[in-house]
Amino acid sequence: MLKLTLEINGQPKTVVAASDESLANVLRENLGLTGTKVGCGEGQCGCCNVILDGKLVRSCVTKMSKVPNGASVETIEGVGTPKDPHPLQVAWMVHGGSQCGFCTPGFIVSAKALLDSNLSPTREEVRDWFQVHRNACRCTGYRQLVDAVMDGAKVLRGEMTIEELSYKLPDDGQIWGGTYPRPSSLAKATGTLDYGADLGIKMPPGTLQLALVQADVSHANILSIDTSAAEKMPGVVKVVTAKDIKGKNRITGLITFPTNLGDGWDRPILCDEKVYQYGDAIAIVCANTLAQAKEAAAKVKVELEKLPAYMSAPAAMAEDAMEIHPGTPNVYYIQKIAKGEETGPIFEKAAMVVEDDFYVGRQPHMPMEPDVGFAFVNHEGKLYIHSKSIGLHLHAAMIAPGLGVEMEKLVMVQNPAGGTFGYKFSPTMEALVGAACLATGKPVFLRYNYHQQMTYTGKRSPFFVNMRLAADNEGKLLGMETDWSVDHGPYSEFGDLLTLRGAQFMGAGYDIPAIRGEGRTVCTNHAWGSAFRAYGSPQSEFASEVLVDELAEKLSMDPLELRYKNVYRPGSTTPTGQEPEVYSLPEMIDILRPKYEAAMAKAKENSTNEVKRGVGISLGVYGCGLDGPDASEVQVELNQDDTVTIYSCWQDHGQGADMGALGTAHQALRPLGLSPEQIRLIMNDTALAPNSGPSGGSRQQVMTGQAIKNGCENLLGAMRKDDGGYRNFSEMMGAGIAVRHDGKWTAPASNCDENGQGNPFSVYMYGVFMAEVAVEVSTGKTSVEKMTLVADIGEINNRLVTDGQLYGGLAQGIGLALTEDFEDIQKHSTLRGAGFPYAKEIPDDLELIYVESPRPAGPFGAAGVGELPLTSPHAAIINAIYNACRARITVLPARPEKVLAALQS
Amino acid sequence: MLKLTLEINGQPKTVVAASDESLANVLRENLGLTGTKVGCGEGQCGCCNVILDGKLVRSCVTKMSKVPNGASVETIEGVGTPKDPHPLQVAWMVHGGSQCGFCTPGFIVSAKALLDSNLSPTREEVRDWFQVHRNACRCTGYRQLVDAVMDGAKVLRGEMTIEELSYKLPDDGQIWGGTYPRPSSLAKATGTLDYGADLGIKMPPGTLQLALVQADVSHANILSIDTSAAEKMPGVVKVVTAKDIKGKNRITGLITFPTNLGDGWDRPILCDEKVYQYGDAIAIVCANTLAQAKEAAAKVKVELEKLPAYMSAPAAMAEDAMEIHPGTPNVYYIQKIAKGEETGPIFEKAAMVVEDDFYVGRQPHMPMEPDVGFAFVNHEGKLYIHSKSIGLHLHAAMIAPGLGVEMEKLVMVQNPAGGTFGYKFSPTMEALVGAACLATGKPVFLRYNYHQQMTYTGKRSPFFVNMRLAADNEGKLLGMETDWSVDHGPYSEFGDLLTLRGAQFMGAGYDIPAIRGEGRTVCTNHAWGSAFRAYGSPQSEFASEVLVDELAEKLSMDPLELRYKNVYRPGSTTPTGQEPEVYSLPEMIDILRPKYEAAMAKAKENSTNEVKRGVGISLGVYGCGLDGPDASEVQVELNQDDTVTIYSCWQDHGQGADMGALGTAHQALRPLGLSPEQIRLIMNDTALAPNSGPSGGSRQQVMTGQAIKNGCENLLGAMRKDDGGYRNFSEMMGAGIAVRHDGKWTAPASNCDENGQGNPFSVYMYGVFMAEVAVEVSTGKTSVEKMTLVADIGEINNRLVTDGQLYGGLAQGIGLALTEDFEDIQKHSTLRGAGFPYAKEIPDDLELIYVESPRPAGPFGAAGVGELPLTSPHAAIINAIYNACRARITVLPARPEKVLAALQS
Repeated sequence: MLKLTLEINGQPKTVVAASDESLANVLRENLGLTGTKVGCGEGQCGCCNVILDGKLVRSCVTKMSKVPNGASVETIEGVGTPKDPHPLQVAWMVHGGSQCGFCTPGFIVSAKALLDSNLSPTREEVRDWFQVHRNACRCTGYRQLVDAVMDGAKVLRGEMTIEELSYKLPDDGQIWGGTYPRPSSLAKATGTLDYGADLGIKMPPGTLQLALVQADVSHANILSIDTSAAEKMPGVVKVVTAKDIKGKNRITGLITFPTNLGDGWDRPILCDEKVYQYGDAIAIVCANTLAQAKEAAAKVKVELEKLPAYMSAPAAMAEDAMEIHPGTPNVYYIQKIAKGEETGPIFEKAAMVVEDDFYVGRQPHMPMEPDVGFAFVNHEGKLYIHSKSIGLHLHAAMIAPGLGVEMEKLVMVQNPAGGTFGYKFSPTMEALVGAACLATGKPVFLRYNYHQQMTYTGKRSPFFVNMRLAADNEGKLLGMETDWSVDHGPYSEFGDLLTLRGAQFMGAGYDIPAIRGEGRTVCTNHAWGSAFRAYGSPQSEFASEVLVDELAEKLSMDPLELRYKNVYRPGSTTPTGQEPEVYSLPEMIDILRPKYEAAMAKAKENSTNEVKRGVGISLGVYGCGLDGPDASEVQVELNQDDTVTIYSCWQDHGQGADMGALGTAHQALRPLGLSPEQIRLIMNDTALAPNSGPSGGSRQQVMTGQAIKNGCENLLGAMRKDDGGYRNFSEMMGAGIAVRHDGKWTAPASNCDENGQGNPFSVYMYGVFMAEVAVEVSTGKTSVEKMTLVADIGEINNRLVTDGQLYGGLAQGIGLALTEDFEDIQKHSTLRGAGFPYAKEIPDDLELIYVESPRPAGPFGAAGVGELPLTSPHAAIINAIYNACRARITVLPARPEKVLAALQS
Repeated sequence: MLKLTLEINGQPKTVVAASDESLANVLRENLGLTGTKVGCGEGQCGCCNVILDGKLVRSCVTKMSKVPNGASVETIEGVGTPKDPHPLQVAWMVHGGSQCGFCTPGFIVSAKALLDSNLSPTREEVRDWFQVHRNACRCTGYRQLVDAVMDGAKVLRGEMTIEELSYKLPDDGQIWGGTYPRPSSLAKATGTLDYGADLGIKMPPGTLQLALVQADVSHANILSIDTSAAEKMPGVVKVVTAKDIKGKNRITGLITFPTNLGDGWDRPILCDEKVYQYGDAIAIVCANTLAQAKEAAAKVKVELEKLPAYMSAPAAMAEDAMEIHPGTPNVYYIQKIAKGEETGPIFEKAAMVVEDDFYVGRQPHMPMEPDVGFAFVNHEGKLYIHSKSIGLHLHAAMIAPGLGVEMEKLVMVQNPAGGTFGYKFSPTMEALVGAACLATGKPVFLRYNYHQQMTYTGKRSPFFVNMRLAADNEGKLLGMETDWSVDHGPYSEFGDLLTLRGAQFMGAGYDIPAIRGEGRTVCTNHAWGSAFRAYGSPQSEFASEVLVDELAEKLSMDPLELRYKNVYRPGSTTPTGQEPEVYSLPEMIDILRPKYEAAMAKAKENSTNEVKRGVGISLGVYGCGLDGPDASEVQVELNQDDTVTIYSCWQDHGQGADMGALGTAHQALRPLGLSPEQIRLIMNDTALAPNSGPSGGSRQQVMTGQAIKNGCENLLGAMRKDDGGYRNFSEMMGAGIAVRHDGKWTAPASNCDENGQGNPFSVYMYGVFMAEVAVEVSTGKTSVEKMTLVADIGEINNRLVTDGQLYGGLAQGIGLALTEDFEDIQKHSTLRGAGFPYAKEIPDDLELIYVESPRPAGPFGAAGVGELPLTSPHAAIINAIYNACRARITVLPARPEKVLAALQS
């Protein structure tokens, strides 16, 4: 222990801490300064940046023994407060710098340190600073952050007032379509928003800290578990194993397709008989402190019989492979697609046929905030589980039978989430904290470290795709044949649905009259497959978008023009045989064409022998909604003070659920003339708000947006007076009219049949991507110099949100294309190891062009947003590499050595 | 458990808490908002005031089950911040509203709630508000707080700017003699200063919470202690008993007088053989949470053999009383006084002789902050004990042998203390936390609840005094005879010293040529005697100041004129035969006389049959220093940035140690032209600063002030260049001159001999008190309508500090006179039960008049301050009651029933 007196944000503070404790933990746990976030905990993300004696440091790797007595520490709380924010904090808000917001305090503190030393940095200097100091952001694509720093500096230099910088409501009072900062932005920018780990610190005294006993092999039989030594360790209250779990001890994906050969009850809460993947939880140690829990976890003895580990779909499909789940074949689901005529004859006759194999790997989500949650039993005997869940009602149903809890006794709450990008469409630790809480009767808290986040949460499922395209001599597409195998890891939840996505999105965007193909879901021992932004489409569209380029080459046609010829126009149908709801792709390509031509010219001009430059194009299409007649429900209430409350479970990954709900409600309630502040949001607690469905499939703006619109209309209808005016609360009470109204909506869509044919989505998003790249010939290292996205996401609710979604998705596309991977469980289990893109890996030059075609089935014409930008940006990049240097990459990521090998072959 | 979303200071916050937990604990422990303080924990002090949904509440008695979901809570952190303080916070600073500062957040939040509803309150409305909302302050006397509210309201009304309100450095840059706000005032006013309980919340994870097993009888033999059931309770790490203590398990007062019949090793750390007083600690339960520790403490079985409890000096002096400490008589120390001729013949011949018996009881200190401390072993293996200790080096020596720790391995640190007023001159829990830490090897934390604060910390020791005065017909005092018995409770530390104070201060202020008397220290089973402001003088001077009034009546002289005739003038000596260092009393009485005459006339005019009014006078005299050649040591260092650091252990009760040190150092360093901010203070940690002696006996401004002056002069001497200028740091380094210098000072004083004769103090403080009271004839209820104090405390360092000390001491004098008591252990163990004075019990009309006689032995002419105002204000009040209604009270407190009885007799 050390006793230090530090000057924390200008105030002297006495601190007692272990000398090997991190400054971050001391700031957070001892001093309660939870504005400083701990992300990776390994000095690779900068979420924990503070200024120590004038120097920017990553406090998670700064031991207290290195902090001098008397040192000054500036944290986000010292930069500014909600009442008195710093110009950088205001700039962050108005530029949409915070999406999930978890990296925000670290970035703002970092930017403050930069401006303390250089008040007039260039954009490139800002980017260099963030790169050198490893400030990582997974949501924004960085551009807005640089914008914010430039404007913050302007204010500090006196060139702009804080008023000029701040958001101003338009004269007409409308926020729909504008840049109103999301409601959570002030709290995010000031570090005052409590994420799960912050709430964990603020749990009541006596809350138990959990540590997992996890498998360090990928496949094994469990012979014995001995907890006796661990139970005797100091501070240990209980070691929970499968036998302590009262229910089925299994998590189910619920809606298993009828032809699925598994029953969907394959994922243990705590492993009992077998280990199915690395990291699988075998026991939970519940102790008074985390250190005690960890020490005791190391004392649990688990005897394992190692089994062959099937680490890819082909390996698990091998004839001699054993059944990972005995009784269920490793290939447990088949999805066919059959559209139009048989393709055999078409391919035989076709003038042009191209074929290739493609692989998009297990992209890790890499949120800045590792997984975290807690549980307690409330005063009514209900089990409350708080987590990053983006599907609260869904997860309740998925875990309740496994835990042995009645649904009525289970409440799920989403904490503010520091990024999920889809991994939280699956329960991760929900059942674990629930089990520990039930077994001990105490509040419990669990946080994964980054290794656990990487190794023991779901990943994007790799697709092995073979694709053939047939076309005539003019490039008109005649038919497509596909074969795809989905490596879904050991747990089946939503694996069949994901396999269906292959049928829906291979060849999407093109009018292909005849399609035949088959996909399959394969059980393996690698990381279990979970949702990831654009779910299924990056794997599916990578194949068709690269193969279309191969076809263009064969035809000696320009790839843009080949696409222009084949995109949806009236009369076209999607791969599932559906008529698109709008036909904006031709217009979008027309808009892009001059930019494309200029880019091609510039690439040629700037190519040298050492650095080759090229341009690539891709189309991206994705549906908004879960398959078929997806539905959402909210409630809308007029309050006593004549404000309105919207009750919804529009869960937030960081995408801006609050702004989505507020913008939609504000527009729907325009007749009342409410200010945005007069609309309150009660969100993401199954005890308080109805089932709005999970936040996946870019469905919320459409489904829950429509439900909000409906609820608001119902309220307005009840409030409307004969003279056309509206009753206030007391008039409603006086007239005996209900003030709380349901809002409901069901999508006009249908499920696909066994041939993958149907109208699964009522609204789609469309994009045309253009990548401009530079390839260093000697190393194969590829840099993306610019990305352009022409996007049709319908009418826009909030520009800050949509810009943020699109920039951020493009950045993830660059990572997917070039660096990101989770194939090697050890090597790829850190941000840097897994190829996380830092500021300089993402170009400052990201151009967005919106085509706002109103969607008939969208509220106020809006579509979804979040998944479009990650449908196929990687394909554009891969096509650009080929355009630059004729190196054709079909297996991602295109790391330098792979590009170099392709160059050399 | 409840899950609530509350709007805390305008920000939505999710809270999980037990439904029977207090809002205060949730704010503090869960949310880390430690600006909200918990004082009494019983709704009697208002330290925990917050605004809940617009209404002022005491959060310590507000259960979470009564806090509605969605409620708004405003805490001190929401009122303003160090960077952006609220006008009330600035007003608090410039008016010296924070002394210990523990009540400050509660008062400011309370004042904010008042101004939210009434922006133009009158002073009386402010006082009524504080009274109704039970905002208790023990330091200030309330007046400054009302001043601050009035000015804060002015700023809020726009009648004054915040700049006009703020402190302005005078043009000459001198702060000595001015109103510079104490350095800690901003942190206190904004709730950002961490007191012991706040630091406890900020201790590292794994810190053990302690609960004491205490005696519920006052005297017993311990037959057995069974900890086995407690050891098995959840969360319990260890139950520490006497057998776990490696040392002597005794606390010693160190400097036991040679004629003391005890050896000074009578106070157990944990009781082993006997219980000596109610509350004595028998075992310490160390557990993970406080609730666990308390539950387990209730399971420790202690078998006791009850013994007769001697609850007063006369009871313990009875012939048949057993020895409380077997082997040591209950009367264990005798102090004689013999000055001048034998008094027997004088009294025989004297024209006038008066005699009476007096009793001043065990006034409780009643700090707003109950006792609190913690301990840990640092990385070098040193035991650190943090507490409210006001005698760090002293306490280290007092407890080290008992704990069995080498002095070099023991570090004592004072936390910011929420008021001590002397009780922390004794170790309270230091040895307990030390023992628990040594026994467990873990950091440990202990906080007393208010019952423990009242029952198990030292109290003012009652004096039973018989006094006789002889005078001639003109009122010239000829002799004094005294007999006094000191009930010191069971523990002897400093009991002999206190008994000596009787010899030194009975009759102080008067030139009495002949004195004879005897005092004795008596061991009893009531609360152990500890220091209390003005230590010994309120008991001693009460007797002489009331008896002088009795003499005046007998002489038919005006009491003021009788005093005027007898006060020290050149040629006079004190009761110890010392020549006073200044002779300001005649001038002080001259200043008071016209006010006295006016007050007498007004009292007469305003007296009715129902309410009698009167005026009373008393003299107060007290020495600055410990007895004899008291010394202090500091260090002064020139820093690299040419600022200066003062290293001292000038411990703070709340009196303003930081300001004392800063003001003195700034004055001493004037040649360097430093701003106050350029002087740093490192204080109150025995590892970092030298022994400046304990903060008692109003010694610090004199002793440590002189040491600082000396240290600064030594530094200046080293810095001085031949041309009269001063070297800066780099020049000092270049010239190889040391930059850190000792500052030392020893008082030119001598110990008293066995007859109480000597020159024990080099500096004294002098006061003339005037009380104006109203007595309700039907009930005996007395109100003090005004107090006036003419004070000579030498040259003044800081007016805010001295005003605060004097106002606050007068308020405690009112309490001592009229209400305060700790005779009945149960009934008097709460603030209200013990007669704590709230705002309306203290008059708004408190007048201070300074006579600044420079003290030859004081730094820049300064004397001490803190104890003067509590020497004899109660005597003036008692004299005023007599003047009003001829009811003579000689046994304090003068509660209504006692005054009524005197009126009726």
